[in-house]
Amino acid sequence: MTVTPEQKAEIASARAQSATTRRVTAPGLEEILYDAIPILDHGFIRVIDYMGDDGSIVQAARVSYGRGTKKVNEDKGLIDYLIRHRHTTPFEMCEIKYHVKLPIFVARQWIRHRTANVNEYSARYSMMDREFYIPDPTQLAAQSTENHQGRGQVLEGEEAAYVLDILKKDAEHNFASYEDMLNQDSAGNQKDPGRQGLARELARMNLTLNTYTQWYWKIDLHNLLHFLSLRAEGHAQYEIRVYADAMLETVKRWVPLAHDAFLRYRMGGVHLSSGGLAAVKALIAGQKPTREQFNLSAREWRELMATLGMESD
Amino acid sequence: MTVTPEQKAEIASARAQSATTRRVTAPGLEEILYDAIPILDHGFIRVIDYMGDDGSIVQAARVSYGRGTKKVNEDKGLIDYLIRHRHTTPFEMCEIKYHVKLPIFVARQWIRHRTANVNEYSARYSMMDREFYIPDPTQLAAQSTENHQGRGQVLEGEEAAYVLDILKKDAEHNFASYEDMLNQDSAGNQKDPGRQGLARELARMNLTLNTYTQWYWKIDLHNLLHFLSLRAEGHAQYEIRVYADAMLETVKRWVPLAHDAFLRYRMGGVHLSSGGLAAVKALIAGQKPTREQFNLSAREWRELMATLGMESD
Amino acid sequence: MTVTPEQKAEIASARAQSATTRRVTAPGLEEILYDAIPILDHGFIRVIDYMGDDGSIVQAARVSYGRGTKKVNEDKGLIDYLIRHRHTTPFEMCEIKYHVKLPIFVARQWIRHRTANVNEYSARYSMMDREFYIPDPTQLAAQSTENHQGRGQVLEGEEAAYVLDILKKDAEHNFASYEDMLNQDSAGNQKDPGRQGLARELARMNLTLNTYTQWYWKIDLHNLLHFLSLRAEGHAQYEIRVYADAMLETVKRWVPLAHDAFLRYRMGGVHLSSGGLAAVKALIAGQKPTREQFNLSAREWRELMATLGMESD
Amino acid sequence: MTVTPEQKAEIASARAQSATTRRVTAPGLEEILYDAIPILDHGFIRVIDYMGDDGSIVQAARVSYGRGTKKVNEDKGLIDYLIRHRHTTPFEMCEIKYHVKLPIFVARQWIRHRTANVNEYSARYSMMDREFYIPDPTQLAAQSTENHQGRGQVLEGEEAAYVLDILKKDAEHNFASYEDMLNQDSAGNQKDPGRQGLARELARMNLTLNTYTQWYWKIDLHNLLHFLSLRAEGHAQYEIRVYADAMLETVKRWVPLAHDAFLRYRMGGVHLSSGGLAAVKALIAGQKPTREQFNLSAREWRELMATLGMESD
Repeated sequence: MTVTPEQKAEIASARAQSATTRRVTAPGLEEILYDAIPILDHGFIRVIDYMGDDGSIVQAARVSYGRGTKKVNEDKGLIDYLIRHRHTTPFEMCEIKYHVKLPIFVARQWIRHRTANVNEYSARYSMMDREFYIPDPTQLAAQSTENHQGRGQVLEGEEAAYVLDILKKDAEHNFASYEDMLNQDSAGNQKDPGRQGLARELARMNLTLNTYTQWYWKIDLHNLLHFLSLRAEGHAQYEIRVYADAMLETVKRWVPLAHDAFLRYRMGGVHLSSGGLAAVKALIAGQKPTREQFNLSAREWRELMATLGMESD
Repeated sequence: MTVTPEQKAEIASARAQSATTRRVTAPGLEEILYDAIPILDHGFIRVIDYMGDDGSIVQAARVSYGRGTKKVNEDKGLIDYLIRHRHTTPFEMCEIKYHVKLPIFVARQWIRHRTANVNEYSARYSMMDREFYIPDPTQLAAQSTENHQGRGQVLEGEEAAYVLDILKKDAEHNFASYEDMLNQDSAGNQKDPGRQGLARELARMNLTLNTYTQWYWKIDLHNLLHFLSLRAEGHAQYEIRVYADAMLETVKRWVPLAHDAFLRYRMGGVHLSSGGLAAVKALIAGQKPTREQFNLSAREWRELMATLGMESD
Repeated sequence: MTVTPEQKAEIASARAQSATTRRVTAPGLEEILYDAIPILDHGFIRVIDYMGDDGSIVQAARVSYGRGTKKVNEDKGLIDYLIRHRHTTPFEMCEIKYHVKLPIFVARQWIRHRTANVNEYSARYSMMDREFYIPDPTQLAAQSTENHQGRGQVLEGEEAAYVLDILKKDAEHNFASYEDMLNQDSAGNQKDPGRQGLARELARMNLTLNTYTQWYWKIDLHNLLHFLSLRAEGHAQYEIRVYADAMLETVKRWVPLAHDAFLRYRMGGVHLSSGGLAAVKALIAGQKPTREQFNLSAREWRELMATLGMESD
Repeated sequence: MTVTPEQKAEIASARAQSATTRRVTAPGLEEILYDAIPILDHGFIRVIDYMGDDGSIVQAARVSYGRGTKKVNEDKGLIDYLIRHRHTTPFEMCEIKYHVKLPIFVARQWIRHRTANVNEYSARYSMMDREFYIPDPTQLAAQSTENHQGRGQVLEGEEAAYVLDILKKDAEHNFASYEDMLNQDSAGNQKDPGRQGLARELARMNLTLNTYTQWYWKIDLHNLLHFLSLRAEGHAQYEIRVYADAMLETVKRWVPLAHDAFLRYRMGGVHLSSGGLAAVKALIAGQKPTREQFNLSAREWRELMATLGMESD
């Protein structure tokens, strides 16, 4: 993670302030407020602000006048019920805001979730930082031979070194070209008084997709959980999953009851099709169902057997 | 406004609590947090929670690491600039949550704004309260003869009394029928042991559209300002405008710089078409333009003259 | 269903027109285009327009240059895969537009789905029609004693007659008052020259929630299927479910492959929590799991057993 | 524009088909349906599908039973009125779908408009094409010295050649590295049997931001006009403005009345703040107002004078 001393001072100063409020607070989240949690080689997430807690979910579901004053146990039961029966609106009553630093190719996946508010660092207005994502050797994987959009085994030996070398050199070279075209060094000083310098909005096109950008990202709890269910999941690309994993920890500090229900009903849950359910019933009845019997494709059958921890043959 | 002693106690208890937070606070809004601000005869708005302040808009526009530490004057200049040039995303970084009690026909207009989070009191789950909106005599207006969807002069004398009498009697009668079909009195007790009582989800259909409902409504500042620009405006129906007016006051307490810019650039601003602009230029040049000259319809010409405080003939 | 002869002529005239187009067409849906399909006592749905077909889903998933020219079988496999793995964006590439006539209390549930475009008949601008929903006796159910927001047995005998009588009389009485306050009869003629008539935007508040309204409603296929998964489902209120059921039939005519996948993976599918899945695995292994063993609540256990077609004790 | 012979054949085949439909058609748009309209050096837009026409806007505003059968003149007056008074929902009743090929840095600006449906070519699933945007020399501008996020004069002579050379070489070099890491040539053949090849989802991070991507993009007319009001406008970056300009032409073919109203009321219109309006009134009254008098900032004053075609001193 690259945070300059100046930025560290700004973060420390924000953390040092405190005020009294009549709003509900989430003490676990207050502890880490503003702190930069390192992700990948130069990225981070920081919780910048939040609204509501577990009680706000309950309060909205009941449309009540005061803060939820019921017992924790009743709140837990209600939150479980709401998440199990897909009552989504009470979860929309909590809101969180992150400051995120991430590689541009990750940002491009991330932004496809449209139900959030975003302010991104502007490369038209300012110069980008000289920071690129270079995968850790343990993450430098070959193309999967089974999954068109996944990774296979980790590259080893010469090929790994070869690839890492390319990624580093190309990113650095292109950034140097970027500065050169801008006619500016990193400190923002003009390099050659004889040149005008290309417009920032044009020069940026020479940067590589692993260049880091940053944004403020604000979302309600329901849509955040939906985002996490897709991005903290095994099929998500590693480079976005590490962000989702870290955010899931902040959710735990913020709304522990909702977090717990989410793990049990969403992340750890499975969906069965009508055919899959019929096969499960047959299995419970001690029969030996076949995929043809329930009209399941070979692929769905394999997925079902994997879900049930059984071998597919 | 009808708030029961029990509800008042819940509100007082929520107001009495306080906690320390590292988040930014809006002291002006904290003062009235949870308080019920009366609207119409039985309605209210209450600010239940909020996130961010004027500084959060600036911080998002700059994607900065700390809280905005710039001078108020610079913040004001930036917020003015952002609102003038329709940079909407920084305003999405502030969020507010209201508890609103409002007649159903107002709720039906209000809900057309889709960019908010809503939890409404459920008439399938609970019995409705015996509360209906009866217009104040000063608001009992005739159909406008000029505007198909507006009001004309206030009704007077016998017609006013006649109408008020109908509204009161019909609402009360239908609510009594509602209780009767439910086979429940307001205290929730069974009326006739020999009857089962109609399902709540069916019985509610007998209620009139002036029956009060309530909801939690949460929205970001950009979308709230858009809502207010339409509903705090002269053409909005009076019964929703009074809610918008009261909310505008809460915005002033929350983000005074954004509120001020909003009044100057949105609420007090006007839009000129290309033809309207050409006519204005001609007027400034001391000419006497006609509507035909700039291809403006009679209606648009009247609207333009009204905007400029001139007579249209 | 109440469609005036004039409206019937307009529908017939729209149906009689035909044009050539280079766009993809859905012949099954063309057959019923503009036709009013009766729902409840006076309501209907009409498909007014549509964009795309099953091939459009495939085309978008592949970002291809031509129309999908692959075999139907491959298209079916891909659509199954997309819906099973929650790839939602290709389904957003199809769009449909309905004209719906429905009771206001149904419209209030319906509008909570925010991802659609809506134009509703304006009771500020025009007078409402004298049409109310009166449940068929087979739908006149008592409040459920088990489910706070559901129906129990059908009311019978005297209570049924009593309730039906109230619903009819109150709706008719309030509509008569509405006309009276407007000082207009249904033909739009002034009743009493000595009165001004109350503004329409006010008079409407006297109407009951079973009064019919109508709107144009446009939505993409992904969001429509989400709507139908909630509203064509057993827990949805009967009065909205009948609309959803009829719309599901139009989906079948429009995108038969997506419809089929939707039935198998969504409508007929079930969701298991992590605890539920563990219990299922134990059952398949021939064990006799208890709910305590997997930390399931009594309610979740009952729901699980019902899903599996087993008795819960 | 780079469209392969195979893709051209697919487009021609799609254009050759025709069917009869009961839906409304837009003959002007049918003419160019599926055609690729070249933008920049390798990009294009293609209209792939559409729903509705000018009459659909009118029909929705009136919630009518048939197609709008009123005279064109009345339709025009209503559409003008709707757009002038910001009645946005009737414009949401028309929908259009584009296939767009565009540089990634343009795609990043574009995607910030969240109210559209998008399916993008997947660089996890497939290899990217060897196509980069290299600005025409007439567009190779220096950083503006006045506007932090704009362009100044066009670069000339040596500096222009120098910059163009960098852009070309770096993009080509990085694409070659991309193929090298993938261990694939453009035809998709393995280069070195001794290497596994890096996963596509990783290798793509080495590409430059001027690499072309493509997507299907679907949006309703209201949101499209909003997009165009921001992106076909003078302050938008040239590289996205050329797409917006071409789309505006397709809107003209599709809904000529709405297009005309949009040009007059939005694109050619101006917004005056309360202070700006007061200054305009003073000017019309023959006074010589100053900016201090109306509390306008120096910047806003300059903008106002420019709007009115007057000199600011």
